Amino acid sequence: MLTNVEHIGIAVRDIATSNDLFTKLLNVTPYKAETVESEGVTTSFFRVNQTKIELLEATNPESPIAKFLEKKGEGIHHLAFEVDDILVEMERLKNEGFTLLSETPKHGADNKLVCFLHPKGTNGVLIELCQEIKE
Amino acid sequence: MLTNVEHIGIAVRDIATSNDLFTKLLNVTPYKAETVESEGVTTSFFRVNQTKIELLEATNPESPIAKFLEKKGEGIHHLAFEVDDILVEMERLKNEGFTLLSETPKHGADNKLVCFLHPKGTNGVLIELCQEIKE
Repeated sequence: MLTNVEHIGIAVRDIATSNDLFTKLLNVTPYKAETVESEGVTTSFFRVNQTKIELLEATNPESPIAKFLEKKGEGIHHLAFEVDDILVEMERLKNEGFTLLSETPKHGADNKLVCFLHPKGTNGVLIELCQEIKE
Repeated sequence: MLTNVEHIGIAVRDIATSNDLFTKLLNVTPYKAETVESEGVTTSFFRVNQTKIELLEATNPESPIAKFLEKKGEGIHHLAFEVDDILVEMERLKNEGFTLLSETPKHGADNKLVCFLHPKGTNGVLIELCQEIKE
């Protein structure tokens, strides 16, 4: 079950400049910064009620964020839904005809298991499923 | 004050097809459909917890959605934040250097007063402020 819009990911060229910009826009400061080397991203997070805004800067030219910026420029990169059971949702969505970008969940930022759906099957929207990893 | 991610607007070519697709994805049916002739859009709304997904189809070739689709294809069109006082937020953001796309709030879908910020000042993200119209 998709239980919440967990976050909206925004690709930016310079996360320090964009942190200032989103601090002014949202009138809150980022509560966390995190680099996920396996995904080639540096992130920062802002909270607005139950949804987070995640800024994403590429750490290297091969990063998916670098490629996105090159092709489309800055802007919304993905939309992430919290799920109560990521394996159940991956199976359900595969059976509904959606294309998963990984066969098993991966470790993402913010202590989450994540899986993306191919945007060709979702009206051009890169969708992330995410589930918090419980200790 | 920005109090919530009220909705995420997604531009689609055919809203009937996309209603089916998002019904499968979100595992809920749209709870409302609405045409806003002044904005040249037909919309449908899905609810996920406190945030809505708004699908947008153009009603005519001059619609901003038609132009978006032509330029960028289907995908996320805008990100809308609920505000407690739209006039106060418009003034605050103007003073912070953001460019408002209208001097006064406009009537949008879903019984809202709305104002957009120019995406050139917000890392390519079209931001909507919205406030529910109280009877």
